[in-house]
Amino acid sequence: MPEPSITSRLQLSGLCFLLQILLIILFALFVRYNPERSPGLDSQELNCSWRNRDLGLQPPRSWDVHLQPLLGFGLLVTFLARYRLGSVATSILVVAFVIQWAVLIQGFLYSFQNGKIVVGAQSMVSASLCTMAVLISTGAVLGRINPVQMLLMTLLEVTIFTLNEFILLSLMGVRDRGGSLTVHTFGAYFGLMVSRILHQPRVDGRQDEQDKGHQADGFAVVGTIYLWIFWPSFTSAPTFCGTTEPWAVLNTHFSLAASTLATFVLSPILHDEGMLWMVQLQDATLASVAMMGMAGEMLVTPFGALTAGFLAGLVPLLGSRFLTPFLRSRLKIQDTCGIHSIHGLPGVLGTLLGTLLAALATADAYGDRLQVVFPEVAQGTRTAPGQGLLQLCALPLTLLLATLGGCLTGALLKAKGLSPPSALPVWEVGEGRDRGACSKERRSSTSV
Amino acid sequence: MPEPSITSRLQLSGLCFLLQILLIILFALFVRYNPERSPGLDSQELNCSWRNRDLGLQPPRSWDVHLQPLLGFGLLVTFLARYRLGSVATSILVVAFVIQWAVLIQGFLYSFQNGKIVVGAQSMVSASLCTMAVLISTGAVLGRINPVQMLLMTLLEVTIFTLNEFILLSLMGVRDRGGSLTVHTFGAYFGLMVSRILHQPRVDGRQDEQDKGHQADGFAVVGTIYLWIFWPSFTSAPTFCGTTEPWAVLNTHFSLAASTLATFVLSPILHDEGMLWMVQLQDATLASVAMMGMAGEMLVTPFGALTAGFLAGLVPLLGSRFLTPFLRSRLKIQDTCGIHSIHGLPGVLGTLLGTLLAALATADAYGDRLQVVFPEVAQGTRTAPGQGLLQLCALPLTLLLATLGGCLTGALLKAKGLSPPSALPVWEVGEGRDRGACSKERRSSTSV
Amino acid sequence: MPEPSITSRLQLSGLCFLLQILLIILFALFVRYNPERSPGLDSQELNCSWRNRDLGLQPPRSWDVHLQPLLGFGLLVTFLARYRLGSVATSILVVAFVIQWAVLIQGFLYSFQNGKIVVGAQSMVSASLCTMAVLISTGAVLGRINPVQMLLMTLLEVTIFTLNEFILLSLMGVRDRGGSLTVHTFGAYFGLMVSRILHQPRVDGRQDEQDKGHQADGFAVVGTIYLWIFWPSFTSAPTFCGTTEPWAVLNTHFSLAASTLATFVLSPILHDEGMLWMVQLQDATLASVAMMGMAGEMLVTPFGALTAGFLAGLVPLLGSRFLTPFLRSRLKIQDTCGIHSIHGLPGVLGTLLGTLLAALATADAYGDRLQVVFPEVAQGTRTAPGQGLLQLCALPLTLLLATLGGCLTGALLKAKGLSPPSALPVWEVGEGRDRGACSKERRSSTSV
Repeated sequence: MPEPSITSRLQLSGLCFLLQILLIILFALFVRYNPERSPGLDSQELNCSWRNRDLGLQPPRSWDVHLQPLLGFGLLVTFLARYRLGSVATSILVVAFVIQWAVLIQGFLYSFQNGKIVVGAQSMVSASLCTMAVLISTGAVLGRINPVQMLLMTLLEVTIFTLNEFILLSLMGVRDRGGSLTVHTFGAYFGLMVSRILHQPRVDGRQDEQDKGHQADGFAVVGTIYLWIFWPSFTSAPTFCGTTEPWAVLNTHFSLAASTLATFVLSPILHDEGMLWMVQLQDATLASVAMMGMAGEMLVTPFGALTAGFLAGLVPLLGSRFLTPFLRSRLKIQDTCGIHSIHGLPGVLGTLLGTLLAALATADAYGDRLQVVFPEVAQGTRTAPGQGLLQLCALPLTLLLATLGGCLTGALLKAKGLSPPSALPVWEVGEGRDRGACSKERRSSTSV
Repeated sequence: MPEPSITSRLQLSGLCFLLQILLIILFALFVRYNPERSPGLDSQELNCSWRNRDLGLQPPRSWDVHLQPLLGFGLLVTFLARYRLGSVATSILVVAFVIQWAVLIQGFLYSFQNGKIVVGAQSMVSASLCTMAVLISTGAVLGRINPVQMLLMTLLEVTIFTLNEFILLSLMGVRDRGGSLTVHTFGAYFGLMVSRILHQPRVDGRQDEQDKGHQADGFAVVGTIYLWIFWPSFTSAPTFCGTTEPWAVLNTHFSLAASTLATFVLSPILHDEGMLWMVQLQDATLASVAMMGMAGEMLVTPFGALTAGFLAGLVPLLGSRFLTPFLRSRLKIQDTCGIHSIHGLPGVLGTLLGTLLAALATADAYGDRLQVVFPEVAQGTRTAPGQGLLQLCALPLTLLLATLGGCLTGALLKAKGLSPPSALPVWEVGEGRDRGACSKERRSSTSV
Repeated sequence: MPEPSITSRLQLSGLCFLLQILLIILFALFVRYNPERSPGLDSQELNCSWRNRDLGLQPPRSWDVHLQPLLGFGLLVTFLARYRLGSVATSILVVAFVIQWAVLIQGFLYSFQNGKIVVGAQSMVSASLCTMAVLISTGAVLGRINPVQMLLMTLLEVTIFTLNEFILLSLMGVRDRGGSLTVHTFGAYFGLMVSRILHQPRVDGRQDEQDKGHQADGFAVVGTIYLWIFWPSFTSAPTFCGTTEPWAVLNTHFSLAASTLATFVLSPILHDEGMLWMVQLQDATLASVAMMGMAGEMLVTPFGALTAGFLAGLVPLLGSRFLTPFLRSRLKIQDTCGIHSIHGLPGVLGTLLGTLLAALATADAYGDRLQVVFPEVAQGTRTAPGQGLLQLCALPLTLLLATLGGCLTGALLKAKGLSPPSALPVWEVGEGRDRGACSKERRSSTSV
């Protein structure tokens, strides 16, 4: 691989410097803490459904706040199993940039008052959801765009993500606590469209070959365990309010367990060589999490979680076997980490499940919880089927925004002359790592 | 190693499918969430000592719930250091199955009302304790039984574990919060008996050789750090109730520290080559945790925790040096991960310590805490020596049930014709991994 | 490397045994739990600024307590990226000893009443801060002193650390929640002085060569993610009190993000080969954490955190490029893990920032929070500039104590004849590990 040229190195350095200085100036102009807990926040934002977790409950707990960055990094860890260690540096750059940029953009939409954005623990939580979506998109193009392009893609995606989230959660009152729709579905289809537009036949062919042999790794073990431990807490945190049982955490746990068994059911049949890769287990875990994102707090019976998790666990295996080759050869969509089967499809299925459950919600089955999960239905300003219809309408809207946004972003990245004619990643961040510990992967990959 | 035959692959796939469908049907018939916090749960189960953590305290906290799966996975991580990465897939399968099965079985015994099992956060917590016991047993037979046998063993062990736990905690009122007796001792002796029954001279001899060289790994570092961080929280969570100091967490921390020093005292003397393996430190950590399981909340003085931890730290080193060879050659008990010295013996010692402390408990030393730790003693329905006697009687009972259960399970696994005549694990789940990252271990192990 | 002699092995074993027995006796004589929450603790220690986190707030939360050992281990994980896996065993020994010894020493200074030390959750928290400082110092001498010397160094450092902390926090009323001054600065300069005194030209030259090639590792990835996840919680935990927004956690998050971008700005310019090592990202993360230690709870505006984090992120890169070679060649200070640029300088800068912010504190900007952050200023017994002056005076005092303590310790270690004439680490704990998994590092390091 050729040495990155001095120009591309200075390009990255300069862009990072410019963005950081810009962010510091914008933060200096607009962003403030609030010494007291703003009473305005509580009363004014009740109609913003994802924010009223505070509605008569505890303040967003310390643990919540700390948990959120985990998410982004959870995904990051899981990518390690799929792609080489060197790409982690790029992902960390993305996370560091998104956290700042998302706080700003979301602040303008959600909490802009008297010319100032008031940030707090809640801002960090919603910035983390945005980070997740960006990292999912990153999974589609990892290894085929350079860090400068990655930063520009991030810049645009955060903006479009926030717009979509604002329309769905605040204007339409859609419930999507765990992000089946706003995070997993949006992130996956955005990334896939960017990948489609940036498609370059010759390079992608080469890349295919290179990716083999990197898939199985100790990182897949760590990633899977990590997801089992922390994801249920994430999904459940907001709805666990003292006197009620934490449905979302229980549903996510049951769903994780069933998706694991689903992998053991399908994998021996699909794969002749009878090998069960840890990566397959990890994919099933991620898929069941995407499935439970919206429905987690709505599922009234544990067996529903088992069934949904079982089905979700089948999706990545079937998808990677039958759908990914089709996407690659016919639609010319390269999908480095297989995000379509892992996040895209399960996200869509999760949305459909959430729609169904919202339409069937009754005060009888939910009890006091109805006030927390569907405040509009509890207050009588909306019927349960009406809520379901809204949830359903949100799906095509999100797909539309994600697809259009992805096309736009891809076109910009292509037009700007950022990608050199050699078409190879010119500045492979962290490539230096491969000399050391990663050399073993290279050796093993050549011997496969 | 021969390719797993198509039959054995379909056997696993079919068994997983059957079990999952069965579980979904049973869940659909019997398991329900409760929209409100069931008042019945609080009043009826006061006599079930390990459940009345809620007794006038907080509800089981969100963090508690999330923490529990950690436990199972903690053990799992520690097995990585002992055995090859490929066996993790099997362990995750076991965890995924046990969580569902234990919720069901424990539900029938503990919370079966009007034909329905009401599950909640508490169910997940107790299912996790069961998972730990099963994983400990797994450690004795890892690498010598195939996944189908593993699942059948799990099926039986969960049932017997729950029966034993129910007799001890609910009927006898024994206190064993951290599971010295119910988890560590039961799991270890159950697994050892299964291993004894499945003993096959020729294969076990070969296995011995193969296990060398896998012992030292970066995973031991991760496992040890993991245990230090999360285990004290686990032991302590239930007894930390706002106004009292968290004795259990402090005792566990002190005990961990002392057991580490114990390893540094004994290892240079026992091992001529003067090497200190990370795995030895990890074993000492696990042993001190098994030791503190029952006694953690009862130890009134910090120096007691230091002394107990120091002694517990010596057990695995002495055990693996003098006892494991004896078990292997004379009693024909193969013990892949050395669970007898790490979980079995320290668990028994911890039970004896807990018995002693229970017998010596006074209202003076415990203060308000007596109501939490020994409710029967505080209410005057039982004397402290009486409580101690009960704790002591629980030990032979648990050993009896574990041994009988292990024999029964081993006999069934052997009789059923599940293990093929070749006697090698026919379907090594995840073996494909060894081609990639694990090949380095193979190379290094041959060079030792 | 020669086999460690029987003498040196027995020396370590004997020292560990002696220290543990001594600790058990001292604990038996002096250390007690308190059955009730001691009311004396709350009323008497209000003037001890780092302890009055309880001042009308919650009791130290369970999660706090569990979090603290993370810190020490976080550092430990990060050292793995810098130095070989084998040294972890030594570090765990240090942690296990410091936790016990610090509880005792700090107990004598802070909570000695009626001839007894009353320990609780709080004791464990402050012992962990001490552990961090010791581990930072360890980073300067790692690989050049043997475990026996390490234990003796620890013995002295804990004592001097506690003395310094007591003078600063209790007597002078300096605010340093996250330990910019008491932990990072003290630990770094203490370790550097010990390293200076132990300087041995011939050996250190050899060591230089050996350290290359070990720097980049998968452990740097794990370490960086670990720091992002857990450190903000640590810094913030004490000041997050229900009704106020968690400034410290937000400031630390912003600062981490900015320091990451700073690395991407400077690294492509400084390093010709255009490689970005994960280790550089990790160093920037640690530096921004050291920077935010004191100022985290005082920064009133988010853009301040971004700016400070950005500057902190530049320090380790510039330091390792221009300062470390100077220290090594001119001042003869060997710095194995580069702690001067990572902990020392950012700690000093953080102290200066904290001083400035303390001097500028107004009731207007802080609101109710002033009572928590600067109780003396809120109560009117001290002015804000007065508080700033005190914070400033604490810096030279800490530097003086750290330097003198380091000299004294180094001289003792040298004088005692503990280091054999061969000058190589005679008893490399955990060296056995290198045969196994670590052999890959050796191979790769020779091929660099």
